[in-house]
Amino acid sequence: MDELENADALDYETIQEQRNDELSALLDSRNMRALKQRMEEMNEFDVAEFLSEIPDNRMPMVFRLLSKETASDVFANFDVPDQERIINSMTDSELAGIIEELYLDDAVDMMEELPANVVKRVMRAATPQTRALINQYLNYPEDSAGSIMTAEFVDLKKYMSVKESFARIRRIGEDKETIYICFVISSHRKLEGIVTVKDLLLADDDTIIEDLMDRNVIFATTTEDQESVSEKFSDYDLMALPVVDTEGRLVGIVTVDDIIDVMEQETTEDFELMAAMTPSDKPYARSGILEIWKNRIPWLMFLMLSATFTSMILTHFESMLAVQAALIAFIPTLMGTGGNSGAQASTAVIRSLSLGDTEPRDALRVAWKELRIALLCGLSLACVNFVKMLILDGMIMKNEGITIPVALTVSLAILFIVIFAKVVGSMLPIAAEKIGVDPAVMANPLISTVTDTVSLLIYIYIAKLILRI
Amino acid sequence: MDELENADALDYETIQEQRNDELSALLDSRNMRALKQRMEEMNEFDVAEFLSEIPDNRMPMVFRLLSKETASDVFANFDVPDQERIINSMTDSELAGIIEELYLDDAVDMMEELPANVVKRVMRAATPQTRALINQYLNYPEDSAGSIMTAEFVDLKKYMSVKESFARIRRIGEDKETIYICFVISSHRKLEGIVTVKDLLLADDDTIIEDLMDRNVIFATTTEDQESVSEKFSDYDLMALPVVDTEGRLVGIVTVDDIIDVMEQETTEDFELMAAMTPSDKPYARSGILEIWKNRIPWLMFLMLSATFTSMILTHFESMLAVQAALIAFIPTLMGTGGNSGAQASTAVIRSLSLGDTEPRDALRVAWKELRIALLCGLSLACVNFVKMLILDGMIMKNEGITIPVALTVSLAILFIVIFAKVVGSMLPIAAEKIGVDPAVMANPLISTVTDTVSLLIYIYIAKLILRI
Repeated sequence: MDELENADALDYETIQEQRNDELSALLDSRNMRALKQRMEEMNEFDVAEFLSEIPDNRMPMVFRLLSKETASDVFANFDVPDQERIINSMTDSELAGIIEELYLDDAVDMMEELPANVVKRVMRAATPQTRALINQYLNYPEDSAGSIMTAEFVDLKKYMSVKESFARIRRIGEDKETIYICFVISSHRKLEGIVTVKDLLLADDDTIIEDLMDRNVIFATTTEDQESVSEKFSDYDLMALPVVDTEGRLVGIVTVDDIIDVMEQETTEDFELMAAMTPSDKPYARSGILEIWKNRIPWLMFLMLSATFTSMILTHFESMLAVQAALIAFIPTLMGTGGNSGAQASTAVIRSLSLGDTEPRDALRVAWKELRIALLCGLSLACVNFVKMLILDGMIMKNEGITIPVALTVSLAILFIVIFAKVVGSMLPIAAEKIGVDPAVMANPLISTVTDTVSLLIYIYIAKLILRI
Repeated sequence: MDELENADALDYETIQEQRNDELSALLDSRNMRALKQRMEEMNEFDVAEFLSEIPDNRMPMVFRLLSKETASDVFANFDVPDQERIINSMTDSELAGIIEELYLDDAVDMMEELPANVVKRVMRAATPQTRALINQYLNYPEDSAGSIMTAEFVDLKKYMSVKESFARIRRIGEDKETIYICFVISSHRKLEGIVTVKDLLLADDDTIIEDLMDRNVIFATTTEDQESVSEKFSDYDLMALPVVDTEGRLVGIVTVDDIIDVMEQETTEDFELMAAMTPSDKPYARSGILEIWKNRIPWLMFLMLSATFTSMILTHFESMLAVQAALIAFIPTLMGTGGNSGAQASTAVIRSLSLGDTEPRDALRVAWKELRIALLCGLSLACVNFVKMLILDGMIMKNEGITIPVALTVSLAILFIVIFAKVVGSMLPIAAEKIGVDPAVMANPLISTVTDTVSLLIYIYIAKLILRI
């Protein structure tokens, strides 16, 4: 049973696989007692993973083998469809047992995703206090500190001694999300300070909490955005952050494991926005095709219709382009280069804004920086393109339309398009941040649509100047 | 001094601002004693932020006010230019003091970024043991568990009692990155289990660690990629993860605060790859324009040259397009729609792969899903485009080239292009993962270049069929 005894040159993934094989063998041979014992020793995430891979009809039966404590921990690690399956296989009193054992934030998360009829059943099974708390938490704005916090923390009073504090931690600590950070509150539940178990361990038994606590508490308010909460964890290397209401009363805490989930969720959201999709809380693998269609079609439609400008420009200059048909062949090159240049600048700025390295007030500095980068990139691209057009398109491919003035036209257009794309690409996210829109929207798809139109105009204008058409 | 006493309806940001104003006033009035006292009470991140905003010539002087312990904590929170500035203003013995107080992982991080001559001076100032450890850590592969771990952990032996363990924690705990997770090792330093301070607090004084420890330890190996390490933190909700060498000996631990930095770094890397930039460790705001140019130009150049295919196709079909000049006007629309559709699919799959929701073996399932989504999206776009072309371009703009067959050609092309883009866009990241390339490379810029070429071919083929040209 000792995982590490044979761990020479093994990694945890191999151990996991071996263990899953062993568990499946126990299940197949119906050796339920050994299976139960083995699962109880495992990490609850691994148990959840194992259970979610066994056939649906046997899964609830295996789940029932678990002790009450393990069961609720495993349950919290399930994804929503597995949670639903388990709930549907349970009696009301079994369900009540699980709900009361769950941490409040896990229960609230689950409620936000379960279908309404299942939520109703769960709420009926919960005790009145739990039900009231869940309802209260469900009322905080989505993605606020209030919506991700939990109520299971250790609170102390400042007149307690270290010895009394340890006694309290031992008494109530079992069910708390963390016992290592304790929150010192007044009789009106106002947050007065924090004290860590490390402070307590290193202090004398008779020391009074007031002399030990850190008054300089970093905290969040219930309505604060979860992105700002996660920045605090990253800046201050926190394990837990207290959440206070408008009166400064401690109403909950956020723990670092929840912040890791928040960070993943926020990153996914940015990715989706940057690829012109409506963000969704549901993982891709679990979303239906109609749902995905609904998230993708609005932007696709908008961007397709926006491209009407480019067709109008092309139609308008049809006769001119007919004179110099060779010019048409380079339209995709110009649009692609413009889009890519703009996307680089906008992505760099979007990320820098979200990490807090760049602020909206840096707009001028950023524009100046991108202007110089664009000059460097634009000149390199223009020179290479000029030579490439004359040698590859002109001499090797024997395209007679490729003259030096034509190559010059395309190359100069590249230079100006890159400059335009990079400066505008870097400014749009900053402008978005200023007016309170998520800067991630100003990414490749939108930038490309903007640069496409302008690229064409730049191209045609330069062609008129150089080729006199 | 009590931050929270006046915290009614305040958020932490307002408190911060007020405090920074107060500190600046103390500095201006040269009230150094009050300034020192105030800084000592503050969180070290806030002190670092404050110091990095005061003028360069005064900053080292204010930094010297700090006590040795606070100084090293603040130092660890500086960014590299500020660290360099401080090092240059210090005597060797002051420097030695800071280095010995730093956590090893912070010291190693700093060494990786400081200029060579400063690194040399720091190494000279360190004690031989610290120097040897730093050198050992610097030798682990970049972005491996070994390169982000630290050596400051609490180790216990399994024959110890709870009482003895607490005595050891009290003795050596002061300088450890975490004391809450203790690592049980054999006389050969092999990792045998872990025990938390919570377990210890809830147990009797005479209990033996062996009976208390969790043998089912989740661990990483020194060469394991940091992305896999951060997945373990997210899956198992860990606070700290032991890192073992190939013989199963405990060589270090990774703590959750470092993982938050890793997650930010990995996300930035994905963003950069997805926007066709070479990833860089250096924040945008601190990178020079030549550096940024070097990271951006290779992809831009490659993508520009790849667009040669589209110009060849257009040149080849020049005469055919001349017959139906109206077709040219819709090339940007088709390319844009293809690129955006492909980018949506590839981004969704890239993110799903990186969260572990989708595995390479799901390739067929993903292709089937994207095919159906593409049908829905393609049909919606094609219908809207058909109507739009006839009404807006044809009737309102009075473009005589827009006939029903032309509108049908463009609309059918949209349908097939969206299908191609979505299926290929979803498969390329999976293929990349399979051959060990970062899937993030298969994002918008590369997908667009692939779909641009194929979109043109689809368009021309459909035009030939319908318009018989």
